[in-house]
Amino acid sequence: MRKIKTILVGQSGGPTAAINASLAGVIRTAYSHNLHILGMRNGIQGFLEGRVVDLTQALNLTSSPHTAKQNLRLLRNTPSSWLGSCRFKLPEPGENPSFYQRVTSRINELGIDTILYIGGNDSMDTTDKLSRYFANTDIDVPVVGIPKTIDNDLEGTDHTPGFGSAARFVATVTAELTCDGGVYDTKNVTFIEAMGREAGWLTAAGALAGDICGTAPDFVLLPEVPLDEEVLLARIKARLAEKNNVMVVVSEGVHRADGSFLFDTGSVATDTFGHFAAQSGTAAYLSRLTKTRLDVKSRSIELNTLQRCASHMASKVDLDEAEALGAAGIEAVLRGETGIMVGIRRLADTPYTTEICTVPVADVANKVKLVPAEMISSDGFNVTEAALRYLRPLAAGAEEPIIVDGLPRFLGALDERHTLRA
Amino acid sequence: MRKIKTILVGQSGGPTAAINASLAGVIRTAYSHNLHILGMRNGIQGFLEGRVVDLTQALNLTSSPHTAKQNLRLLRNTPSSWLGSCRFKLPEPGENPSFYQRVTSRINELGIDTILYIGGNDSMDTTDKLSRYFANTDIDVPVVGIPKTIDNDLEGTDHTPGFGSAARFVATVTAELTCDGGVYDTKNVTFIEAMGREAGWLTAAGALAGDICGTAPDFVLLPEVPLDEEVLLARIKARLAEKNNVMVVVSEGVHRADGSFLFDTGSVATDTFGHFAAQSGTAAYLSRLTKTRLDVKSRSIELNTLQRCASHMASKVDLDEAEALGAAGIEAVLRGETGIMVGIRRLADTPYTTEICTVPVADVANKVKLVPAEMISSDGFNVTEAALRYLRPLAAGAEEPIIVDGLPRFLGALDERHTLRA
Repeated sequence: MRKIKTILVGQSGGPTAAINASLAGVIRTAYSHNLHILGMRNGIQGFLEGRVVDLTQALNLTSSPHTAKQNLRLLRNTPSSWLGSCRFKLPEPGENPSFYQRVTSRINELGIDTILYIGGNDSMDTTDKLSRYFANTDIDVPVVGIPKTIDNDLEGTDHTPGFGSAARFVATVTAELTCDGGVYDTKNVTFIEAMGREAGWLTAAGALAGDICGTAPDFVLLPEVPLDEEVLLARIKARLAEKNNVMVVVSEGVHRADGSFLFDTGSVATDTFGHFAAQSGTAAYLSRLTKTRLDVKSRSIELNTLQRCASHMASKVDLDEAEALGAAGIEAVLRGETGIMVGIRRLADTPYTTEICTVPVADVANKVKLVPAEMISSDGFNVTEAALRYLRPLAAGAEEPIIVDGLPRFLGALDERHTLRA
Repeated sequence: MRKIKTILVGQSGGPTAAINASLAGVIRTAYSHNLHILGMRNGIQGFLEGRVVDLTQALNLTSSPHTAKQNLRLLRNTPSSWLGSCRFKLPEPGENPSFYQRVTSRINELGIDTILYIGGNDSMDTTDKLSRYFANTDIDVPVVGIPKTIDNDLEGTDHTPGFGSAARFVATVTAELTCDGGVYDTKNVTFIEAMGREAGWLTAAGALAGDICGTAPDFVLLPEVPLDEEVLLARIKARLAEKNNVMVVVSEGVHRADGSFLFDTGSVATDTFGHFAAQSGTAAYLSRLTKTRLDVKSRSIELNTLQRCASHMASKVDLDEAEALGAAGIEAVLRGETGIMVGIRRLADTPYTTEICTVPVADVANKVKLVPAEMISSDGFNVTEAALRYLRPLAAGAEEPIIVDGLPRFLGALDERHTLRA
């Protein structure tokens, strides 16, 4: 086993309901190995600004085993990124050596032996660049990535922590809105907009509503399938002839064959990585179109930020896996691994069986895993049974919330007194 | 005790997460008294169209005690109005006798002895008119109202079933969005829009987020208080000087001193009762204003229909009370009461103690109970401790969801085969 004294852990990219469970897994395992545990405030960006927090102190781990356990449990069940996050693209190691020298000098100042970075595609780019720079300059600091994203679009892992909880939320509210949509004796069409810019995983999860309320959505529109609005309108019209309450789950990223998006409210912003940032308005656009063209009641519901932070609907499977991957990250650095991401390999759907694997982070960074053809119905307007088999175990299993005085309880915001400003 | 053989129950107005619990309470109690239980499909409107359902059959109550118990439990935990709803304003009894003669002939055809109507302000108007017509024409059919509305704006009851669950959802997602809003190291302002057209009860519930995540919203903007945008902007600016993440919960119905609403997307629709129907865009408007005027990041999140059907966040207190009021409705008609609504009288906040009361429905119909002055902070930008004391017991207490194969389970839609079409 490799000799390690001090680890540095960071969170990056969009928050999820499970990213703090991975952080709890890292901290619990590191603490059990008597490691000194430092956290980056706001990811690599905050680290470069000298904002680092002593997590043993901040979580009061040494006061009593009971307090330590309680605080790590609260951390597991708290949505968003407790350490704070950033969206910061590192330069190529060869192009900006002074940047990496700054990183290295901070690492030396704090005696950091290893770095764990929890995040999605872009965070794996950071993990990749840091590990390559250190390897090329013979600096002995392993860097390991721990996956998270509600988008579930990472290569190298069967699925990503954060997705299962978001999927559970999307499936449940789609079922609730299906019940709601049937309440008046009038024809109406509901469009529910789910997140997922390029990959339709979360939109596909809406199809699990069928398991909950007995009526699956009529249409599930993924960004993987170019949409012909005229065909959609004809399909909706035919469905309205059979039933009152037509339900459509649609991805924010759905577009036409020519690549244009289905909304008309201004331009699409791109983020610092050059990906297009979350837009919205796809459901609102389709709802207006349906009202106008089919002369029928229609409404649109954007699930919005709620889907990425719905701790109150966390999947136990998801949080357990997120925590296990945090622990696996520590085990990997203790084995001396670097430049890898820990991931999940699925062995069976029923009973759901998995094992933890590792994958070179270069094979993950900057790639996007789309919903494959076999999970999309041949007409492109719904998902297949294969998709449901894939999705079910990830969204299943209720995490028991922590309830105090009858209300959920989260871990309070990190106290700035624990931040060691350089 | 009054001799009753056949009861008719209906649901009306906007659905909630608790209205089916009241229906379950009516059915359970009626069944225990060996009554014949008929349900209106889509309220009084469907009843007039001859759409009535035999609920003993539809819920399979006679097959086995286990099945009956299971189906009533599923009904309790299913969002929306299982019988369907309507928004239908009855004519004044004096003005349109032929309308009431049609109602009476349907009642005679089916041998109905009594009517229970579950709904909000407008449904109590229906209850009032029917009971007055029957009383004035010596028709011996008692009519009793059972309250529900997420808006909590009914007179004659401390609070309304449906509100506690919606409040629990609003409080929890406000806490989740507070965690989410603090994730990047940048100044930003979040506007969360809650339902409540004239009364700010649900918006006020956002303040309970402080109990959950340790940070209460900075501002809670109720429709009871005219808003001066310039003062709000100055208050937000001052708050941004102290902290990064400013959270505002705002009612869809907030307006200026001159009565104009805070959005610019078209006109306000009115519903069949002449009340203005749900509009939205208040949070989006304030977010745009804040971005432009304060040059700061801002986002808006509409909680939308989700708040009224979030069974997955149901408050146990709420569902228990909803079911108890359904049962109390049957007990009231068995005592021979008519023209009344059953309600809740609060005896103490801590420990939370209540009793069931009855109130003349004429004192409830078409009135709106606003958030009182003592629950609003003197500057009008937040709620007081008195509001939190009132709100806490209603939102507290998690209802244990019914989980099948790891996912929530609702009662499937009412099978149309059980509808007896006239």
